[in-house]
Amino acid sequence: MTTQAGLSRLSLNQRTTASWSLPEAIKGCLDAGLGAIGIWREQLAEVGLDEACRLVTESGLRVSSLCRGGFFTTADPAEAKAAEANNHEAIEETAGLNAATLVLVPGGLPLGDRDLQAARDRASKAIEQLVPYAHELGVTLGIEPMNPIYAADRGVISTLAQALDIAERFDPADVGVVVDTFHLWWEPGITDQVQRAGDRIVSYQICDWITPLPADTLLARGMMGDGHIDFRSFTQSVARAGYRGDIEVEIFNADLWAAPPSDVVNTMAERYLNLVLPYLGGDAP
Amino acid sequence: MTTQAGLSRLSLNQRTTASWSLPEAIKGCLDAGLGAIGIWREQLAEVGLDEACRLVTESGLRVSSLCRGGFFTTADPAEAKAAEANNHEAIEETAGLNAATLVLVPGGLPLGDRDLQAARDRASKAIEQLVPYAHELGVTLGIEPMNPIYAADRGVISTLAQALDIAERFDPADVGVVVDTFHLWWEPGITDQVQRAGDRIVSYQICDWITPLPADTLLARGMMGDGHIDFRSFTQSVARAGYRGDIEVEIFNADLWAAPPSDVVNTMAERYLNLVLPYLGGDAP
Repeated sequence: MTTQAGLSRLSLNQRTTASWSLPEAIKGCLDAGLGAIGIWREQLAEVGLDEACRLVTESGLRVSSLCRGGFFTTADPAEAKAAEANNHEAIEETAGLNAATLVLVPGGLPLGDRDLQAARDRASKAIEQLVPYAHELGVTLGIEPMNPIYAADRGVISTLAQALDIAERFDPADVGVVVDTFHLWWEPGITDQVQRAGDRIVSYQICDWITPLPADTLLARGMMGDGHIDFRSFTQSVARAGYRGDIEVEIFNADLWAAPPSDVVNTMAERYLNLVLPYLGGDAP
Repeated sequence: MTTQAGLSRLSLNQRTTASWSLPEAIKGCLDAGLGAIGIWREQLAEVGLDEACRLVTESGLRVSSLCRGGFFTTADPAEAKAAEANNHEAIEETAGLNAATLVLVPGGLPLGDRDLQAARDRASKAIEQLVPYAHELGVTLGIEPMNPIYAADRGVISTLAQALDIAERFDPADVGVVVDTFHLWWEPGITDQVQRAGDRIVSYQICDWITPLPADTLLARGMMGDGHIDFRSFTQSVARAGYRGDIEVEIFNADLWAAPPSDVVNTMAERYLNLVLPYLGGDAP
């Protein structure tokens, strides 16, 4: 493979081009000259792990993340057991793909349950229970704190500080954090928290916070430069913290999904070159 | 006036019944047996301060808050001066109405501006500049931290911790905080922060976080009991912190605005009696 100048650390998260299968997304990354891809388990399942590993190896792309494990806030023992089994599978896939991390989305409040602290405690406990298996397979779990807009229905861990409070109980090789601009741009003291995270940053995901928010808040993310986030200062803080991994563009947005995926990839590459790359410092891999 | 059993500390924020003028809202409060009202400046302007003061005095209602001052994140000196003048007027109205607090909504990022920290610093500085006049008129400013969903376009102060970091630089009689369940229910460590707030809590505002969020996020608030917030534990923490003031229901919601206002007031009273009052502890005023 040959990456385009400046794009060696840029990764396409498959969710940004939701209509592409895994083979199509891999081809799209290669055509655009990217260095990495963030793979989703749904598209992985369509081709199977063996074929996916073969395609990825052949492509020469790094796998910057596997999305996603987690969703372990249930209070029901049977559901918790099923979630654990599902996460074990995800760990195996992450190891097979040699992905930099398995992204853990904690999950929201169970239906009718209003005890947020208890849900947070269960998420923390579930992570703890996954660590031995992840360690055994050489997988680094990446806790993803999520914008409070999703605290009820998707991710009960709301700040980087909170994610680090959990991650720091474990070896950095086993548990890290996912730093996503959309989720964290507003967090008071975020620069200090990114510095605190240091080598626990296992993924730097980027997209913008746009207003007015699209009607479906799950699809509320925007292309870098279209919204309110200062990618210069955020990227500089991530670089200063020592992050040298891939920069993954993950955008859930109905308008982008309706556009030709290769156009979306080209736009994200252009925005990355202008808004992010100049502030990454350090050496590209 | 005679309040209904249990409703002496319940306050109708005018925004919950947006179609009512101030005289109509006052009558609505009296008809339902509430003890207080939260007044909006727009409806106040329709009748004028003198007439409003007369109506309020005649009604016997307490004014639990005047909404709202703030919106002082501009970087433009002329706009900042206009915002200050506007806030001075709001302080005068708060004093005239003998309202418990002037709610300060910080404002969002100026158009095209992505420096969130600078906007936060300007908000903090603007509050500092208002304090002498508020003190002179015996008005307590109430900083309202807002859900991060509004960080870009409405309120750059995102957590109670952050609001307290500002408020604690001043005398509690001059600067307090507004504790709103919708804005703060997700904040990690919120119970400790409410305890920390103590006698700086100048307003306890309630409404629910509902999912899916309505398409217009500015109207995303729900009636207590319709969403994910645990009003028991939140209310208990506010009571433990020593709050003995009014409990104001502030709901921005298009469906509620389309319903007969008196029905909305009755529903909010019923929900309050079931979900909030039992956990208030202490004595009603």
